[in-house]
Amino acid sequence: MSGPDRNQLEEGEELHLDFQKLRKVAMASAPVLPVAVQDAETGEVLILAYANEEAVRYTLEHGVAAFWSTSRDELWVKGATSGDTLQIIEVRVNCEQNSLLYLVKPLGKGACHTRTRDGRTRTGCYYRRVANGALEFVDEAMR
Amino acid sequence: MSGPDRNQLEEGEELHLDFQKLRKVAMASAPVLPVAVQDAETGEVLILAYANEEAVRYTLEHGVAAFWSTSRDELWVKGATSGDTLQIIEVRVNCEQNSLLYLVKPLGKGACHTRTRDGRTRTGCYYRRVANGALEFVDEAMR
Repeated sequence: MSGPDRNQLEEGEELHLDFQKLRKVAMASAPVLPVAVQDAETGEVLILAYANEEAVRYTLEHGVAAFWSTSRDELWVKGATSGDTLQIIEVRVNCEQNSLLYLVKPLGKGACHTRTRDGRTRTGCYYRRVANGALEFVDEAMR
Repeated sequence: MSGPDRNQLEEGEELHLDFQKLRKVAMASAPVLPVAVQDAETGEVLILAYANEEAVRYTLEHGVAAFWSTSRDELWVKGATSGDTLQIIEVRVNCEQNSLLYLVKPLGKGACHTRTRDGRTRTGCYYRRVANGALEFVDEAMR
Protein backbone atom coordinates (compact mmCIF):
# COMPACT_ATOMS: atom_id res chain seq x y z
CA MET A 1 0.00 0.00 0.00
CA SER A 2 1.61 3.24 -1.05
CA GLY A 3 1.03 6.44 0.91
CA PRO A 4 -0.07 9.81 -0.40
CA ASP A 5 2.27 11.54 -2.83
CA ARG A 6 3.94 14.86 -2.12
CA ASN A 7 1.27 16.90 -3.87
CA GLN A 8 -1.51 15.19 -1.93
CA LEU A 9 0.33 15.77 1.33
CA GLU A 10 1.03 19.43 0.66
CA GLU A 11 -2.01 20.59 -1.25
CA GLY A 12 -4.65 18.05 -0.31
CA GLU A 13 -7.48 18.15 2.15
CA GLU A 14 -6.94 14.70 3.55
CA LEU A 15 -5.23 14.23 6.89
CA HIS A 16 -2.24 11.90 6.57
CA LEU A 17 -0.09 12.67 9.58
CA ASP A 18 3.45 11.41 9.29
CA PHE A 19 4.50 10.03 12.66
CA GLN A 20 7.64 8.44 11.21
CA LYS A 21 9.59 11.56 10.26
CA LEU A 22 10.84 12.25 13.79
CA ARG A 23 12.47 8.84 14.00
CA LYS A 24 14.31 9.54 10.76
CA VAL A 25 15.32 12.94 12.12
CA ALA A 26 16.70 11.34 15.27
CA MET A 27 18.75 8.95 13.15
CA ALA A 28 20.50 11.76 11.30
CA SER A 29 24.26 11.90 11.71
CA ALA A 30 24.14 14.94 13.98
CA PRO A 31 22.01 15.17 17.12
CA VAL A 32 19.45 17.93 16.67
CA LEU A 33 16.76 19.77 18.57
CA PRO A 34 13.48 21.17 17.24
CA VAL A 35 13.18 24.85 16.40
CA ALA A 36 9.88 26.69 16.11
CA VAL A 37 10.20 29.77 13.90
CA GLN A 38 7.93 32.73 14.45
CA ASP A 39 7.55 35.98 12.54
CA ALA A 40 8.58 38.57 15.15
CA GLU A 41 6.21 41.15 13.73
CA THR A 42 3.04 39.26 12.79
CA GLY A 43 3.39 36.44 15.35
CA GLU A 44 2.73 33.82 12.68
CA VAL A 45 4.40 30.49 13.39
CA LEU A 46 6.14 29.92 10.08
CA ILE A 47 7.96 26.60 10.18
CA LEU A 48 9.29 23.95 12.51
CA ALA A 49 12.72 22.59 11.70
CA TYR A 50 15.74 21.01 13.37
CA ALA A 51 19.13 22.40 14.33
CA ASN A 52 22.34 20.78 15.45
CA GLU A 53 25.13 22.53 17.30
CA GLU A 54 26.70 23.82 14.09
CA ALA A 55 23.39 25.26 12.86
CA VAL A 56 22.75 27.04 16.15
CA ARG A 57 26.26 28.50 16.08
CA TYR A 58 25.81 29.64 12.46
CA THR A 59 22.46 31.22 13.31
CA LEU A 60 23.88 33.16 16.25
CA GLU A 61 27.02 34.26 14.40
CA HIS A 62 25.43 35.28 11.12
CA GLY A 63 22.02 36.46 12.30
CA VAL A 64 20.12 34.33 9.79
CA ALA A 65 18.11 31.21 10.49
CA ALA A 66 20.07 28.03 9.88
CA PHE A 67 19.03 24.45 10.46
CA TRP A 68 20.32 20.96 9.90
CA SER A 69 18.80 19.32 6.87
CA THR A 70 18.08 15.86 8.18
CA SER A 71 17.25 14.60 4.69
CA ARG A 72 20.40 15.92 3.03
CA ASP A 73 22.46 15.64 6.22
CA GLU A 74 24.03 19.06 5.83
CA LEU A 75 23.87 22.60 7.14
CA TRP A 76 20.80 24.31 5.72
CA VAL A 77 20.96 28.07 5.68
CA LYS A 78 17.37 28.96 4.95
CA GLY A 79 17.13 31.02 1.77
CA ALA A 80 20.66 30.30 0.57
CA THR A 81 19.24 29.05 -2.72
CA SER A 82 15.66 30.41 -2.71
CA GLY A 83 16.46 33.88 -1.39
CA ASP A 84 13.88 33.41 1.35
CA THR A 85 16.26 34.27 4.15
CA LEU A 86 14.95 34.64 7.68
CA GLN A 87 16.76 37.38 9.58
CA ILE A 88 17.14 36.57 13.26
CA ILE A 89 15.64 39.04 15.70
CA GLU A 90 16.04 36.81 18.75
CA VAL A 91 16.82 33.21 19.66
CA ARG A 92 14.91 31.92 22.68
CA VAL A 93 15.35 28.70 24.60
CA ASN A 94 12.75 26.72 26.53
CA CYS A 95 12.86 25.86 30.22
CA GLU A 96 14.61 22.51 29.75
CA GLN A 97 16.92 23.81 27.02
CA ASN A 98 15.88 21.13 24.56
CA SER A 99 14.10 23.28 21.98
CA LEU A 100 14.52 26.73 20.46
CA LEU A 101 12.31 29.53 19.21
CA TYR A 102 13.71 31.72 16.46
CA LEU A 103 11.99 35.09 16.22
CA VAL A 104 12.60 36.25 12.67
CA LYS A 105 11.99 38.84 10.01
CA PRO A 106 11.41 37.19 6.62
CA LEU A 107 13.53 38.95 3.99
CA GLY A 108 12.19 37.03 1.01
CA LYS A 109 8.79 36.03 -0.27
CA GLY A 110 7.90 33.50 2.43
CA ALA A 111 9.15 30.74 4.70
CA CYS A 112 7.38 27.69 3.27
CA HIS A 113 8.75 25.83 0.24
CA THR A 114 5.21 25.40 -1.15
CA ARG A 115 3.33 27.79 -3.38
CA THR A 116 -0.26 28.73 -3.89
CA ARG A 117 -2.07 27.80 -7.10
CA ASP A 118 -1.19 31.16 -8.57
CA GLY A 119 2.48 30.78 -7.76
CA ARG A 120 2.93 32.81 -4.59
CA THR A 121 5.28 31.41 -1.96
CA ARG A 122 3.31 30.74 1.20
CA THR A 123 4.42 32.85 4.18
CA GLY A 124 4.38 29.83 6.49
CA CYS A 125 3.70 26.09 6.55
CA TYR A 126 0.59 26.04 8.76
CA TYR A 127 -1.92 27.04 6.08
CA ARG A 128 -4.41 24.24 6.84
CA ARG A 129 -6.46 23.37 9.90
CA VAL A 130 -7.95 20.06 10.92
CA ALA A 131 -11.74 20.12 10.72
CA ASN A 132 -13.99 17.08 11.01
CA GLY A 133 -11.15 14.69 10.37
CA ALA A 134 -10.07 16.46 7.18
CA LEU A 135 -8.01 19.52 6.31
CA GLU A 136 -9.24 22.91 5.23
CA PHE A 137 -7.32 25.92 4.13
CA VAL A 138 -7.22 28.57 6.84
CA ASP A 139 -7.39 31.30 4.29
CA GLU A 140 -8.76 30.93 0.75
CA ALA A 141 -6.02 33.26 -0.49
CA MET A 142 -3.44 30.69 0.62
CA ARG A 143 -4.94 27.91 -1.49
CA MET B 1 31.53 14.88 34.15
CA SER B 2 28.00 15.63 35.31
CA GLY B 3 25.84 18.12 33.45
CA PRO B 4 23.85 21.02 34.86
CA ASP B 5 21.08 20.16 37.31
CA ARG B 6 17.43 20.89 36.67
CA ASN B 7 17.49 24.20 38.51
CA GLN B 8 20.51 25.42 36.56
CA LEU B 9 18.86 24.37 33.28
CA GLU B 10 15.55 26.04 34.05
CA GLU B 11 16.52 29.11 36.03
CA GLY B 12 20.13 29.67 35.06
CA GLU B 13 21.76 32.05 32.64
CA GLU B 14 24.14 29.53 31.14
CA LEU B 15 23.42 27.99 27.76
CA HIS B 16 23.46 24.18 27.98
CA LEU B 17 21.48 23.04 24.98
CA ASP B 18 20.32 19.44 25.20
CA PHE B 19 20.74 17.86 21.77
CA GLN B 20 20.11 14.37 23.14
CA LYS B 21 16.47 14.72 24.15
CA LEU B 22 15.11 14.23 20.62
CA ARG B 23 16.81 10.87 20.30
CA LYS B 24 15.17 9.75 23.53
CA VAL B 25 11.84 11.06 22.25
CA ALA B 26 12.23 9.08 19.05
CA MET B 27 12.91 5.93 21.07
CA ALA B 28 9.61 6.23 22.97
CA SER B 29 7.22 3.33 22.52
CA ALA B 30 4.85 5.34 20.33
CA PRO B 31 5.93 7.25 17.22
CA VAL B 32 5.31 10.96 17.77
CA LEU B 33 5.48 14.25 15.96
CA PRO B 34 6.39 17.67 17.37
CA VAL B 35 3.65 20.13 18.30
CA ALA B 36 4.21 23.86 18.69
CA VAL B 37 1.62 25.42 20.98
CA GLN B 38 0.64 29.04 20.53
CA ASP B 39 -1.69 31.28 22.54
CA ALA B 40 -4.39 32.10 19.98
CA GLU B 41 -4.97 35.53 21.48
CA THR B 42 -1.53 36.86 22.43
CA GLY B 43 0.45 34.94 19.79
CA GLU B 44 2.97 33.79 22.41
CA VAL B 45 4.58 30.45 21.58
CA LEU B 46 4.01 28.64 24.86
CA ILE B 47 5.54 25.18 24.63
CA LEU B 48 6.80 22.57 22.22
CA ALA B 49 5.80 19.00 22.95
CA TYR B 50 5.17 15.69 21.20
CA ALA B 51 2.00 13.88 20.23
CA ASN B 52 1.30 10.36 19.05
CA GLU B 53 -1.81 9.28 17.19
CA GLU B 54 -3.75 8.72 20.42
CA ALA B 55 -2.86 12.19 21.74
CA VAL B 56 -3.93 13.87 18.50
CA ARG B 57 -7.22 11.99 18.56
CA TYR B 58 -7.81 12.94 22.21
CA THR B 59 -7.03 16.58 21.45
CA LEU B 60 -9.47 16.72 18.55
CA GLU B 61 -12.23 14.85 20.38
CA HIS B 62 -12.03 16.65 23.72
CA GLY B 63 -10.91 20.10 22.62
CA VAL B 64 -8.01 20.25 25.08
CA ALA B 65 -4.31 19.96 24.31
CA ALA B 66 -2.99 16.44 24.82
CA PHE B 67 0.48 15.09 24.16
CA TRP B 68 2.45 11.93 24.60
CA SER B 69 4.72 12.07 27.61
CA THR B 70 7.88 10.56 26.23
CA SER B 71 9.44 10.36 29.71
CA ARG B 72 6.49 8.62 31.35
CA ASP B 73 5.43 6.90 28.12
CA GLU B 74 1.77 7.73 28.58
CA LEU B 75 -0.96 10.04 27.37
CA TRP B 76 -0.43 13.47 28.87
CA VAL B 77 -3.52 15.65 29.01
CA LYS B 78 -2.02 19.02 29.81
CA GLY B 79 -3.45 20.40 33.05
CA ALA B 80 -5.01 17.12 34.19
CA THR B 81 -3.12 17.41 37.46
CA SER B 82 -2.02 21.07 37.54
CA GLY B 83 -5.26 22.57 36.29
CA ASP B 84 -3.35 24.41 33.58
CA THR B 85 -5.53 23.11 30.77
CA LEU B 86 -5.08 24.47 27.26
CA GLN B 87 -8.37 24.76 25.41
CA ILE B 88 -8.01 24.06 21.71
CA ILE B 89 -9.07 26.81 19.36
CA GLU B 90 -7.59 25.22 16.25
CA VAL B 91 -5.23 22.43 15.22
CA ARG B 92 -3.08 23.23 12.20
CA VAL B 93 -0.82 20.98 10.19
CA ASN B 94 2.30 21.87 8.24
CA CYS B 95 2.87 21.35 4.53
CA GLU B 96 4.48 17.93 4.89
CA GLN B 97 2.07 16.81 7.63
CA ASN B 98 4.86 15.94 10.02
CA SER B 99 4.27 18.59 12.69
CA LEU B 100 1.30 20.33 14.29
CA LEU B 101 0.44 23.74 15.63
CA TYR B 102 -2.11 23.89 18.43
CA LEU B 103 -3.72 27.31 18.78
CA VAL B 104 -5.00 27.45 22.34
CA LYS B 105 -6.63 29.44 25.08
CA PRO B 106 -4.93 28.80 28.44
CA LEU B 107 -7.58 28.14 31.08
CA GLY B 108 -5.18 27.94 34.04
CA LYS B 109 -2.29 30.02 35.31
CA GLY B 110 0.22 29.23 32.57
CA ALA B 111 1.60 26.62 30.20
CA CYS B 112 5.11 26.12 31.59
CA HIS B 113 5.80 23.83 34.55
CA THR B 114 8.31 26.32 35.98
CA ARG B 115 7.60 29.23 38.29
CA THR B 116 9.05 32.63 38.88
CA ARG B 117 10.94 33.41 42.08
CA ASP B 118 7.76 34.74 43.63
CA GLY B 119 5.82 31.60 42.75
CA ARG B 120 3.88 32.56 39.63
CA THR B 121 3.51 29.91 36.94
CA ARG B 122 5.20 31.15 33.78
CA THR B 123 2.82 31.64 30.85
CA GLY B 124 5.21 29.89 28.45
CA CYS B 125 8.57 28.15 28.32
CA TYR B 126 10.48 30.63 26.15
CA TYR B 127 11.27 33.17 28.87
CA ARG B 128 15.00 33.44 28.09
CA ARG B 129 16.89 34.62 25.03
CA VAL B 130 20.41 33.80 23.93
CA ALA B 131 22.68 36.85 24.18
CA ASN B 132 26.45 36.77 23.86
CA GLY B 133 26.63 33.05 24.38
CA ALA B 134 24.60 33.18 27.59
CA LEU B 135 20.94 33.41 28.53
CA GLU B 136 19.03 36.42 29.71
CA PHE B 137 15.46 36.70 30.88
CA VAL B 138 13.29 38.31 28.22
CA ASP B 139 11.27 40.07 30.87
CA GLU B 140 12.44 40.79 34.40
CA ALA B 141 8.93 40.02 35.66
CA MET B 142 9.40 36.45 34.44
CA ARG B 143 12.53 35.87 36.50
